[in-house]
Amino acid sequence: MTKQIDIGFLLYPGVTQLDATGPAQVLSLLTGAKIHMIWKEKGPIETDAQFSINATTTFDECPNLNVICIPGGAGQMAIMMDPKVLAAFGDMLKNFGAEHVAERVVRDRNRLTGGGVTAGIDFGLTLAAEIEGVEKAKEIQLYIEYAPNPPFDAGTPEKAGPEIESIVRKKFAESLGGAFT
Amino acid sequence: MTKQIDIGFLLYPGVTQLDATGPAQVLSLLTGAKIHMIWKEKGPIETDAQFSINATTTFDECPNLNVICIPGGAGQMAIMMDPKVLAAFGDMLKNFGAEHVAERVVRDRNRLTGGGVTAGIDFGLTLAAEIEGVEKAKEIQLYIEYAPNPPFDAGTPEKAGPEIESIVRKKFAESLGGAFT
Repeated sequence: MTKQIDIGFLLYPGVTQLDATGPAQVLSLLTGAKIHMIWKEKGPIETDAQFSINATTTFDECPNLNVICIPGGAGQMAIMMDPKVLAAFGDMLKNFGAEHVAERVVRDRNRLTGGGVTAGIDFGLTLAAEIEGVEKAKEIQLYIEYAPNPPFDAGTPEKAGPEIESIVRKKFAESLGGAFT
Repeated sequence: MTKQIDIGFLLYPGVTQLDATGPAQVLSLLTGAKIHMIWKEKGPIETDAQFSINATTTFDECPNLNVICIPGGAGQMAIMMDPKVLAAFGDMLKNFGAEHVAERVVRDRNRLTGGGVTAGIDFGLTLAAEIEGVEKAKEIQLYIEYAPNPPFDAGTPEKAGPEIESIVRKKFAESLGGAFT
């Protein structure tokens, strides 16, 4: 029998949905993958993109996880300090303190971090390779035809230039409720 | 007052969720964007990735759309021939017959097509530029930090090689219920 791999995504109101849905698409294609969308209650969680995704399980009901993914978003700081989240995932999340490095996918012991919303797919493939090997990750990459070809080259501040960077920094600060302006 | 742009995504059971959620993330960031997730009834639509997304409106209640996106998935062929879909969107979808070209984003009159699940982000940015200009599209690209850096280079059959291609073709045929084997 195929071994089940339990992969959880911690959702919360305001989550940047692509940060969850990108890796979820990749990781759901692993052999034996069981995807769990987790929140305090089951049912709809409003995302940042004007639609909602349903939590499939709760902190209390969620089985032990092999992998937990924590997508970014305006509510992320609060959620990472929520007593219920820490009670449920404290063991997996402890020593989560990190220093910033300019990489899209970073490994720190058993933690893999994707930087940037759309890094989730790169992150998912890196993790897929760790779990089931490079050949499987390549199969998934071909299955989702991930051969990105951005129509513009503005995905980093350096490439976008100072004018666009300044607009985006302002928007990003607004999205965080001014907390980081 | 900012002009509202109504952007619809036609959901259906089995939809390849990243095909909708990728462009939805990009297009939700346009000025005045109003995202509609459309199905016969409101509420949860099971996706291909073991979680559900909620339809926010129905064919009957959906306002006139400026943009309609039809994500791919195992149920797509059936849905495009569904009388209710055709009644609702027939005008937008007529003359939809197409010939295959090896590009990720293709324009045909007022139709823009993204080829491959993860092409949705490229597609979304191309469309964002059409709607609100290249500068805005670049802002969005930086906001979502879309500077893809796949850990492997297997996103096309040529790059993945014949062995992986053959495995993936088999899986893809299975996902379509054998209809296209």
